[in-house]
Amino acid sequence: MKTSPLAPPDFPALEPVKGVRIGAAAAGIRYQGRDDLAMAAVAPGSTVAGVFTTSRTCAPSILWSRAAANRAGGGNGFGLVVNAGNANAFTGAAGMAAVNETASAAAALLGCDAGDVFVASTGVIGEPLDVGKLTAALPGLYERLSESGLAAAAQAIRTTDTFPKGASVKTEIAGKAVTISGIAKGSGMIEPNMATMLAYVFTDAAIAQGALQDILLEVNEKSFNAITVDSDTSTSDMLLLFATGKAGNPLVERAGDPALGAFREALTGLMVDLATQIVKDGEGATKFITIDVGGAESDQAARRIAKAIANSPLVKTAIAGEDANWGRIVAAAGKAGEAVDPDRLVIRFGGTVVTEKGARVPDYDEGKLDAHLKGQYIDIAVDLGIGDGQARVWTCDLTHGYIDINADYRS
Amino acid sequence: MKTSPLAPPDFPALEPVKGVRIGAAAAGIRYQGRDDLAMAAVAPGSTVAGVFTTSRTCAPSILWSRAAANRAGGGNGFGLVVNAGNANAFTGAAGMAAVNETASAAAALLGCDAGDVFVASTGVIGEPLDVGKLTAALPGLYERLSESGLAAAAQAIRTTDTFPKGASVKTEIAGKAVTISGIAKGSGMIEPNMATMLAYVFTDAAIAQGALQDILLEVNEKSFNAITVDSDTSTSDMLLLFATGKAGNPLVERAGDPALGAFREALTGLMVDLATQIVKDGEGATKFITIDVGGAESDQAARRIAKAIANSPLVKTAIAGEDANWGRIVAAAGKAGEAVDPDRLVIRFGGTVVTEKGARVPDYDEGKLDAHLKGQYIDIAVDLGIGDGQARVWTCDLTHGYIDINADYRS
Repeated sequence: MKTSPLAPPDFPALEPVKGVRIGAAAAGIRYQGRDDLAMAAVAPGSTVAGVFTTSRTCAPSILWSRAAANRAGGGNGFGLVVNAGNANAFTGAAGMAAVNETASAAAALLGCDAGDVFVASTGVIGEPLDVGKLTAALPGLYERLSESGLAAAAQAIRTTDTFPKGASVKTEIAGKAVTISGIAKGSGMIEPNMATMLAYVFTDAAIAQGALQDILLEVNEKSFNAITVDSDTSTSDMLLLFATGKAGNPLVERAGDPALGAFREALTGLMVDLATQIVKDGEGATKFITIDVGGAESDQAARRIAKAIANSPLVKTAIAGEDANWGRIVAAAGKAGEAVDPDRLVIRFGGTVVTEKGARVPDYDEGKLDAHLKGQYIDIAVDLGIGDGQARVWTCDLTHGYIDINADYRS
Repeated sequence: MKTSPLAPPDFPALEPVKGVRIGAAAAGIRYQGRDDLAMAAVAPGSTVAGVFTTSRTCAPSILWSRAAANRAGGGNGFGLVVNAGNANAFTGAAGMAAVNETASAAAALLGCDAGDVFVASTGVIGEPLDVGKLTAALPGLYERLSESGLAAAAQAIRTTDTFPKGASVKTEIAGKAVTISGIAKGSGMIEPNMATMLAYVFTDAAIAQGALQDILLEVNEKSFNAITVDSDTSTSDMLLLFATGKAGNPLVERAGDPALGAFREALTGLMVDLATQIVKDGEGATKFITIDVGGAESDQAARRIAKAIANSPLVKTAIAGEDANWGRIVAAAGKAGEAVDPDRLVIRFGGTVVTEKGARVPDYDEGKLDAHLKGQYIDIAVDLGIGDGQARVWTCDLTHGYIDINADYRS
């Protein structure tokens, strides 16, 4: 698969996170000649927070890992095992048995409780997972775990991804230096809707479990829950945030603690970075589209309208064709079921106003828009002029590449 | 544009409807060398019922025609004027003035009230309509109106349609022979959602306005509201049903009147025929997909799940690729937000059961599915095993043709 034209020039240097050892191996589950299995050991005494797919047909790994997040364990540390190539979703009782077996095998190696091992699988839905191949690869993988293994893990968890996704940032809490590093995967079947594809974020900050969960939910709304590639929500979306406490900052007990100011900003930047990397690797993507909706009745209304525009096949194909067909934005805004007054609607492409008072502007000049549309980064802003609600959503265009990948290849 | 491979072999013979004169002309609004304007005169004393787009950014023609439907006039007859090539949507005050001017010009020719002239425009959104070209073509068109003009009108109202759409049926009410004939257009921006693209159905039955509206809403739910091409709801959807009363049946006052039994069945068949013709001309379509959902918590839940499957780009591209990737159906069913118990979910392709008890069937044989998937007509049935709710929805596959049409051509 050719690398996305929107891929970052280089994979970023990922800072090791104290208390997190991670690595990758080739288990040969589906792909040949590449790593397809990642594992992490997170130090005893860490906390973890997670959000998971809202799909009603979610995979057994989601049921298992949601339970792991809810039990707030970790006294003996946490484990994480992720395989790519098979989603182990809709695989019946055998599917849950495979998750159980994976967690037990990892726990035995890591010395933690099986209930504290997070398990994730991504790839084809409905094919039985050969869990024997997976567990056979774990002991060798365990030997290779290290603080510098994040990049290898980012490579291993890819499916139709054309580039690995990672981000790293340094910040502080109460004057103590804190590191946050994360990896993610995802390219198609992306409209996370309260969760994400797979994303794992690690920090050495000391943050209590409840506070960690609160801040994760808050930042998730602005990052992974604000992206869509194709409106399809996966059976297996999972976002985890581990905090090892090794930075030595005084334990933060509440998400609202002012000491988290810089951390919140840094975490938001990192999660937006990871989430938009997924959009930049959207299947077949050639354009990265930022949609800002303002002046809506509420933030929720703004979000719905932004998503209706972002998921409109007609808007996405117009952008692919570098066509300033803003009428399709009007139509998409109108179908969302939220209050829209055509006479107050203002649409901008790359900052240029194209509509006002229910029609295109008197000096409408499509030539001015063309330069913007020929670029890789397209900005659409819609002001409804009704209230204060606002939302930002990211998506990509819909091209022949998407059809190639999904009509001709079983991902 | 190449004719859709799913097009019917021939355009059907459309029976004239007593009391309806119709015709077409070339106004040169956007297209050259073809008719782009249709007009109809419906006899005094007729009744009319309509449903319209739910879009919050609907076109002025919708506002005007909705008012015409609500006033229940028609004492001096009804008029209908439809142009193709320009949707006259999001065109500000000038757009409404153009509608007014069109209705007045038609009313003067037809001898009816301007408020009883239905106006529709379909095509590009946001470009000013040169209404002078339209009104200039009306007098000549008026001279050519005839009971045999339905086919010409079906041709004239096309935009990206690759074939004209029409249907005709004979039935009876209280022993009196009754005719129903209809025309429609639509190919992209199709998820009508309480209305349709453009569809005009005429009958010579005598049915009171209230009864006509009730039966239209009822049948619309099973026909135009049960189709989707690309999940995009138009600014301009309109479905009208005119009843001239010329058949001489005793006036039917209530939709529940048993005398309407055969008529209801005939109207349903005709409207399903027209609606599925739109799907068969879905932009880029190569496969016609019928999705039946049963065993849901309610009919509404079944409809939502059927629509989630029908609108999933991943399901639609898998069908395009003739790939029995039923895992994508599981994922789409799971994202609809309705109750789904994976262990009870039964999925069939072309009648062949592929899943049961939360996994694929033990004797799963993809080869058996391939013959079905290679055909043009794909049947997907999903039984949720929870309740009695059911729904049927029609859609088409998502192919390179859709991208070609919408990325490279401003429709």
